Amino acid sequence: MKVAVIMGSDSDYPVLEPLIKTLEEFGIESEILVASAHRTPEKVHVFASSAKQRGIKIIIAAAGAAAHLAGVIASVTTLPVIGIPIKSSALNGMDSLLSTVQMPAGIPVATMAIDGAKNAALFAIQILALSDNNLADKLETYRDNLKIEVEQKNANLQKKLNK
Amino acid sequence: MKVAVIMGSDSDYPVLEPLIKTLEEFGIESEILVASAHRTPEKVHVFASSAKQRGIKIIIAAAGAAAHLAGVIASVTTLPVIGIPIKSSALNGMDSLLSTVQMPAGIPVATMAIDGAKNAALFAIQILALSDNNLADKLETYRDNLKIEVEQKNANLQKKLNK
Amino acid sequence: MKVAVIMGSDSDYPVLEPLIKTLEEFGIESEILVASAHRTPEKVHVFASSAKQRGIKIIIAAAGAAAHLAGVIASVTTLPVIGIPIKSSALNGMDSLLSTVQMPAGIPVATMAIDGAKNAALFAIQILALSDNNLADKLETYRDNLKIEVEQKNANLQKKLNK
Amino acid sequence: MKVAVIMGSDSDYPVLEPLIKTLEEFGIESEILVASAHRTPEKVHVFASSAKQRGIKIIIAAAGAAAHLAGVIASVTTLPVIGIPIKSSALNGMDSLLSTVQMPAGIPVATMAIDGAKNAALFAIQILALSDNNLADKLETYRDNLKIEVEQKNANLQKKLNK
Amino acid sequence: MKVAVIMGSDSDYPVLEPLIKTLEEFGIESEILVASAHRTPEKVHVFASSAKQRGIKIIIAAAGAAAHLAGVIASVTTLPVIGIPIKSSALNGMDSLLSTVQMPAGIPVATMAIDGAKNAALFAIQILALSDNNLADKLETYRDNLKIEVEQKNANLQKKLNK
Amino acid sequence: MKVAVIMGSDSDYPVLEPLIKTLEEFGIESEILVASAHRTPEKVHVFASSAKQRGIKIIIAAAGAAAHLAGVIASVTTLPVIGIPIKSSALNGMDSLLSTVQMPAGIPVATMAIDGAKNAALFAIQILALSDNNLADKLETYRDNLKIEVEQKNANLQKKLNK
Amino acid sequence: MKVAVIMGSDSDYPVLEPLIKTLEEFGIESEILVASAHRTPEKVHVFASSAKQRGIKIIIAAAGAAAHLAGVIASVTTLPVIGIPIKSSALNGMDSLLSTVQMPAGIPVATMAIDGAKNAALFAIQILALSDNNLADKLETYRDNLKIEVEQKNANLQKKLNK
Amino acid sequence: MKVAVIMGSDSDYPVLEPLIKTLEEFGIESEILVASAHRTPEKVHVFASSAKQRGIKIIIAAAGAAAHLAGVIASVTTLPVIGIPIKSSALNGMDSLLSTVQMPAGIPVATMAIDGAKNAALFAIQILALSDNNLADKLETYRDNLKIEVEQKNANLQKKLNK
Repeated sequence: MKVAVIMGSDSDYPVLEPLIKTLEEFGIESEILVASAHRTPEKVHVFASSAKQRGIKIIIAAAGAAAHLAGVIASVTTLPVIGIPIKSSALNGMDSLLSTVQMPAGIPVATMAIDGAKNAALFAIQILALSDNNLADKLETYRDNLKIEVEQKNANLQKKLNK
Repeated sequence: MKVAVIMGSDSDYPVLEPLIKTLEEFGIESEILVASAHRTPEKVHVFASSAKQRGIKIIIAAAGAAAHLAGVIASVTTLPVIGIPIKSSALNGMDSLLSTVQMPAGIPVATMAIDGAKNAALFAIQILALSDNNLADKLETYRDNLKIEVEQKNANLQKKLNK
Repeated sequence: MKVAVIMGSDSDYPVLEPLIKTLEEFGIESEILVASAHRTPEKVHVFASSAKQRGIKIIIAAAGAAAHLAGVIASVTTLPVIGIPIKSSALNGMDSLLSTVQMPAGIPVATMAIDGAKNAALFAIQILALSDNNLADKLETYRDNLKIEVEQKNANLQKKLNK
Repeated sequence: MKVAVIMGSDSDYPVLEPLIKTLEEFGIESEILVASAHRTPEKVHVFASSAKQRGIKIIIAAAGAAAHLAGVIASVTTLPVIGIPIKSSALNGMDSLLSTVQMPAGIPVATMAIDGAKNAALFAIQILALSDNNLADKLETYRDNLKIEVEQKNANLQKKLNK
Repeated sequence: MKVAVIMGSDSDYPVLEPLIKTLEEFGIESEILVASAHRTPEKVHVFASSAKQRGIKIIIAAAGAAAHLAGVIASVTTLPVIGIPIKSSALNGMDSLLSTVQMPAGIPVATMAIDGAKNAALFAIQILALSDNNLADKLETYRDNLKIEVEQKNANLQKKLNK
Repeated sequence: MKVAVIMGSDSDYPVLEPLIKTLEEFGIESEILVASAHRTPEKVHVFASSAKQRGIKIIIAAAGAAAHLAGVIASVTTLPVIGIPIKSSALNGMDSLLSTVQMPAGIPVATMAIDGAKNAALFAIQILALSDNNLADKLETYRDNLKIEVEQKNANLQKKLNK
Repeated sequence: MKVAVIMGSDSDYPVLEPLIKTLEEFGIESEILVASAHRTPEKVHVFASSAKQRGIKIIIAAAGAAAHLAGVIASVTTLPVIGIPIKSSALNGMDSLLSTVQMPAGIPVATMAIDGAKNAALFAIQILALSDNNLADKLETYRDNLKIEVEQKNANLQKKLNK
Repeated sequence: MKVAVIMGSDSDYPVLEPLIKTLEEFGIESEILVASAHRTPEKVHVFASSAKQRGIKIIIAAAGAAAHLAGVIASVTTLPVIGIPIKSSALNGMDSLLSTVQMPAGIPVATMAIDGAKNAALFAIQILALSDNNLADKLETYRDNLKIEVEQKNANLQKKLNK
């Protein structure tokens, strides 16, 4: 169990699917749960403060609006915490972004783009790859595939334009 | 001990002085402390979850940037929590405001203006006055004095203009 | 009649339904009306300045755009006023939020999230619970149910993930 | 007495000096007062609802933060109301601007730039000039002088550049 | 021909329909045209600079995005110019609002809410009513009707709630 | 006379000095003037519509707040127009930026950063360099010097760090 | 091959169609490709740094969110680079706009409106027209047609209004 | 050499001093350099693409305005990249934040608060501590000291209040 993924609401699940799929593709064991910084604070506290002892290496937290989840978790663990601001409110995620990223000195949260779930997975993998050559190789392959995908899209565009 | 005031950092103290002075003027006993949602989460948790039993009626929480303090407190007590977003970061308090006000359904934080410390005190007093006629009378007097102050300022302006 | 709810426009009603339902669930008597700070200012004035004498304890005001309703009410009563910024204009409620929350020193409005109607009800109940132990107990139960709901959502997610 | 100028706080006075000076230069009689939509609502109400009968033609209202003053005045008179959003809060006047301009259908406020006091005077004069040819001529002269001023500034720049 | 209405694009027409209807209801003669500050600058210039001589009293200009139309018109006439920022771009009208309202000292544009077309008509009528008692009476009736409408909406709500 | 530089106000001059210096360093003849889209619209119109015939190749326009200058110029010439949004108002140049960049289809303005005067000069030079090899070479040298400057700054930092 | 158009993602293609059509209408040879500053950085680098030698005169780059593409290209060429911020993220293109326009001194990007693809083509043509009289004439005709189009729209509106 | 720190401009150095001091306090070897994504793109490219082979584990990149540095580095390495948005422009760092955090899927940048330099160091240390128990212990001590600091500040406040 290397990476824990915690979402503030089950309505965030569809945004997080690419994250879960990416962890699976890289063969990363994960623990995924719904827990709310505001509705189930004790559960979040217990979960986060015990994560290290349970062998978790990295915690990914996704929340919207007054998105306190990542910060609250970061306050009770020294494990790296990655925050995903969710676009779930009237303000298109600007509130989630600022609530997640503007952490005070001492307690960092590594913030991804609004709804940037896949990148949270990739960043966790980049961390794990620092001590796992196999994973590091997979990351290089992943990047190569990204390039191939873009090239393929370009090739398709050229065909379309030359018709 | 009726009202507790908690600030995320002692650098917020000057902004909170009008709050403390207002509580004193109305004769409200208060408890004032520095505690950080991120740096001293356990202290905040113990403080907030035990507040009701210690006789606290209302908690006022002031914090800046990713201002989680009021929300974190609200998550562990059913006492009314009043949040003051502090203008302490690059973004002039917009981050503090959104982090404080955009709370999810279930866990309200009554948010004041950015740096609106005096109004936090007055709102707490308005709540206490619901069951304290003496306090209610003082509030009416306070409002009357506000009017007199504005009238006095107007009188001064008229003098200045008529010179 | 303990809580009054006033909305600037009947088009705000659907947003306020969770508020009304929550007050009912907690057995709070309420008075609900449509009145506009700009179109029916006298009615708002009479309503708000007489509220205390009619036995109202708390006023909840919901309005959008240049949302002056809560502030206008707060200016003529010393009862606690809770403001709900409604997302009704081109600017997604940012105008409503700033018009509601940025009140000057002296006249507080306790502001909820944009469209945060349910929390307005809960905050009013938290205030009333300060002098009503039965209500206080109901609030604890409500919070427990919130936790159970989140746990249930988590259980559902685990089932889905383990399929 | 043709134009009334009302400011929410005497601290707004320095911003309004160009307005007052401009009204004087054009020979417009004016009434200038401090009154607050929130602290002295009755005074504002009496002032605004009686303005027409006292011979006032246009009301200019300046306020900052949750700037309700112009809207509140507009709600009790059918005289043209011009709003000046004052830059007085943490948010650089964005709150004042949105609180002033985003009025609901039915009750217009003619909004000027943030701190745009001189233009409020000029716009009032443009209205009065519709039925006052002398004033209309003065406005044409004012515009000509604006042009001459810009030309003079350009001439000064050319001198500086050619040194 | 008392009021001229100019829109930057015919796609703004649906937003302006309430304006046109309101002018008709009040019996105000109007001239309505499509002309663009950027695509047909000469036409705008000729139109605006000759408006006064053609008997126009007030010009209403509606435009979106880099909404220069009202400002450009104001620069060549001393007639009152009312600007309507149209919500037509990616930024929900914030660009239109700032481009319309933030005019430099000397050249005012009376700015309405984003898409606030009806209020532009009403504000023009309020100006015309200063020298037309019949129109002034109609405005009072209009306001009374607004009140009746709100009261009716309130009555409907009460019925619904009491079912 | 290859490049014309027009500023809306002489107060913009200090921001434009690096632009003027850069044009001089590259040996570009320029015409510099103060003219306002709003205060001297006819002058701007004559200047811009005649620019091409006077041999001007590129027009650079700098303005703040409701910054219409670049757009107004672009509307009467097919020469390339470069806009510099000036940070001169309460809103830190956000109004200037949106007023300059959000031009409608048909009439482009090439917008630089807020207060980005030097880049306006460089972009004009990049255009002129397309048909002037000497200028193109100078640009390459300029870029090389930029690199050397950064390298020098890095060398200074290394010295400082190794002390 | 005079103009190169590069888009960060093939999903930007529909936004760019008016650009491509406009280049064709003016008979401008173009090279269009998909390449990502982040996913295919080497390809972008090779493409941009060799563009000048391949006879490219102007590069147009379109990208959304953290829109680095135009800036990255500008950093390796002295050709004029035109940036189109694409509205592709939660923030409606505000992120794309700021990432494209706020370039540091030394490396300009000529920024168009959010999704302002057609204007990017027109601005490129305006540059090319500086040394191509035929193109300059076509631009004048294009502008004349814009005027005719607006006039036609106005004529249609008049018909509609007079029914 | 475990951590590399790269800043877009030497003017960012004062903001980065707490970062450098923190790395030193934790005994982390670091490489610190000035290099600009826009002015010295080749240097950045060589530096970033060779970092892994030179034994670098983590890269921290700080830049302001159109802050492309972190993203550009992330595009050529699979090492974890931490971005610090610098408040260096007219927009108070909002441009830097959005340019750094809104990265497309595939290429993550772990973003800290605006000017959040110390947290960048701490987050890098949290990553390194995953495979270094000594470092992990130091982090726990650091957190304990944070708590003691806050407690000390609270004690000072209590003294002040009790005078």
